[in-house]
Amino acid sequence: MNFEIISIGTEILLGQIVNTNARDISIMLSDLGMNVYYTTVVGDNPERLKEALEVAASRADGIITTGGLGPTKDDLSKETIAEFCGLRCVPHEESRQRLLDRFKKMNRYMPESNLKQADMPEGCIVLKNNNGTAPGAIIEKDEKVFIMLPGPPSEMKPMLYESVKPYLEKKADSVIHSKVLRVFGVGESAAEEKVGDLINQTNPTLAPYAKTGEMEFRLTAKAKNRKEAEEMLIPLEEKVREIIGDCIYAEGEDATMQQAVVELLLAKGKTVAFAESCTGGLIAKKITDVSGASECFGCGFVTYSNDQKIKRLGVKPETLDEFGAVSWQTAYEMCRGAREQAGADIGVGVTGIAGPGGGTPEKPVGLVYVGICSDDIHAVCKLNLSGNRNMVRERTSLYALDLVRRNLLGILKTKEDEKVLDTDYIW
Amino acid sequence: MNFEIISIGTEILLGQIVNTNARDISIMLSDLGMNVYYTTVVGDNPERLKEALEVAASRADGIITTGGLGPTKDDLSKETIAEFCGLRCVPHEESRQRLLDRFKKMNRYMPESNLKQADMPEGCIVLKNNNGTAPGAIIEKDEKVFIMLPGPPSEMKPMLYESVKPYLEKKADSVIHSKVLRVFGVGESAAEEKVGDLINQTNPTLAPYAKTGEMEFRLTAKAKNRKEAEEMLIPLEEKVREIIGDCIYAEGEDATMQQAVVELLLAKGKTVAFAESCTGGLIAKKITDVSGASECFGCGFVTYSNDQKIKRLGVKPETLDEFGAVSWQTAYEMCRGAREQAGADIGVGVTGIAGPGGGTPEKPVGLVYVGICSDDIHAVCKLNLSGNRNMVRERTSLYALDLVRRNLLGILKTKEDEKVLDTDYIW
Repeated sequence: MNFEIISIGTEILLGQIVNTNARDISIMLSDLGMNVYYTTVVGDNPERLKEALEVAASRADGIITTGGLGPTKDDLSKETIAEFCGLRCVPHEESRQRLLDRFKKMNRYMPESNLKQADMPEGCIVLKNNNGTAPGAIIEKDEKVFIMLPGPPSEMKPMLYESVKPYLEKKADSVIHSKVLRVFGVGESAAEEKVGDLINQTNPTLAPYAKTGEMEFRLTAKAKNRKEAEEMLIPLEEKVREIIGDCIYAEGEDATMQQAVVELLLAKGKTVAFAESCTGGLIAKKITDVSGASECFGCGFVTYSNDQKIKRLGVKPETLDEFGAVSWQTAYEMCRGAREQAGADIGVGVTGIAGPGGGTPEKPVGLVYVGICSDDIHAVCKLNLSGNRNMVRERTSLYALDLVRRNLLGILKTKEDEKVLDTDYIW
Repeated sequence: MNFEIISIGTEILLGQIVNTNARDISIMLSDLGMNVYYTTVVGDNPERLKEALEVAASRADGIITTGGLGPTKDDLSKETIAEFCGLRCVPHEESRQRLLDRFKKMNRYMPESNLKQADMPEGCIVLKNNNGTAPGAIIEKDEKVFIMLPGPPSEMKPMLYESVKPYLEKKADSVIHSKVLRVFGVGESAAEEKVGDLINQTNPTLAPYAKTGEMEFRLTAKAKNRKEAEEMLIPLEEKVREIIGDCIYAEGEDATMQQAVVELLLAKGKTVAFAESCTGGLIAKKITDVSGASECFGCGFVTYSNDQKIKRLGVKPETLDEFGAVSWQTAYEMCRGAREQAGADIGVGVTGIAGPGGGTPEKPVGLVYVGICSDDIHAVCKLNLSGNRNMVRERTSLYALDLVRRNLLGILKTKEDEKVLDTDYIW
């Protein structure tokens, strides 16, 4: 099947937001082996949307739209598409009830205008919105399929995978199946060099992608069915794992480092505590992104000031005086303090200069010390990170979590001096 | 002038990259007061590009393409567009020389195929590429303008501002100027109802946009010059501020709640401390997103377990036993504990059920208590938030920060009982 994506929203044409929806839909269709030859963006304007629908319907079997399903006056996608298909919009009782329940639960007043979201094209398949108010819809008309999805990515993406993908899977004649291996500790070009010729084969394929502070390998096979495609990936994955080894920390597109760490902590029955200065709570935030983190994480310390490093973590005033807050010595004491104060198995301490201000020639922006303290190890690594404040903090949090992972796996190494961590891996 | 943007590149249709070029071009055109009614993405395929050009030329005065100007075999944009305009590509001596010089300077071998990048459509305006090898081009043909830009954003964007903008400025007869007011405490549809007819006027315009947990108003005027446009927005902004009032927390596209809060804290010389359970460090992370937060934030407590709520914050064991960790009473003691322990002017305590697990009929997912304690107030609000774990946490953090903002502004109110905060605002 050939698809065309139409993103509806004047804010995209004005450049106020980037069209990530088109990218997400493209990825899903591509995974199903379906083609996308064109994507279009059009404003919240019924006339121009109609023109875009005419052009799209003349050259595609399926059209997926995003946006314009909301309650406001300029949300006219559903009405326009229904009209284009010769259908009326009629109240959909279940959606109406969901909407009323939702507002009732939140104890909020619902403007009357909201109910128009529950008017759906006659005879369409209604797609439940579990993350917002506007349902989606699928219209099947003259061998063509029109799929309408909401605009906010937090509503669109779940609906895409929960409802649209299962619907389209039934129509696909071959499948493209991908598996993602997430990697921390190897740079993109180093990884590409390492895997060598594996990258030039055609089916299955192996492609490296750079992400902030980490990278991933995408293994992709095209086959008659999912099972066959999965089998094609097994030998390729084995080869990649042999080469990249422990730097592969998880599988799957949506896998995260924090999830991998929480799973390991739970599996080993261990707990962790963090003392954060430059990351300011980001590491604790990440760990608690994972539902169920309470079993392995009881406490985090955001000790931004020197005073609080002393009070909360028992960092010695002399250490701060002599070496400064951003120092190997402070990180060493912070991680021990976090472990002791929280009564955790593993303590991590982070101190550094995230920028943009605060750097000096001796201690430039991007200088970060991460310490870890457990039964097995008590040591610190020094990082020289690049990027803006946000990136330095993000990268630091990944390093800190990866140290916990490596400690739990028993593969954390120190260098010549047993207090210096080896984090060179294979960048 | 009406423009249409055509992004050329199979990697966009496959979802491998997001189309940020279209966004950047849209912003530039919008600043010049030029309209973009459609943008299209098409793969590296001459036939389909020709079709996209036909559609675009039938409805736009100007067409801007990106991508497909490189040296490889599938880079065929320039040839296809030239053919569409009835022009041949001929060697352009200056571009040829620049290309040869560039490779010489880098001391790299230049494959012969590279020279095709210096073949330009007859009679076009050649746009120098200061950041890569492929020049851009402008073709003026039958009252229409075709502008070809390279695909890599690091080459496209400088060329857009160095060459294309000055070229188009001469053709523009007006500018469009926008101002964004960021709003917390009013829902999108409630806000729309409140501002009523203001939303239906045409120049200047007023448009509401929903964001996660908050919203913004965009005020836009079209005028002969920037100054005139700015003046047109003043009375509109006054009216909106009169209606929405204190719920407007900042101005500007990139403004954030945390920035507004840090600025206020610094201006008033106050400090804040957070005790976080369900947000797990997110609020501290947000405050420390702002460079310079160390002046007003010394310490955060991520007290995920009951035990740590007792140890770090002095929450009474009886309170936890009798009312549970997620309770009005616990939040009340947490914020006081945070304030006292950190020695801060304002203490905030957050406890709730972020989900997806952990909910009960009495305490469902989304139930959150936020307490605040300062010289002026010691009270708690109860929130019933919707959305997934991520959204509940995000919304909670905005509420917590907004309470600090309102406290600093002296507009935080309590309800009948002086320990219950009024956070109904105008949702």
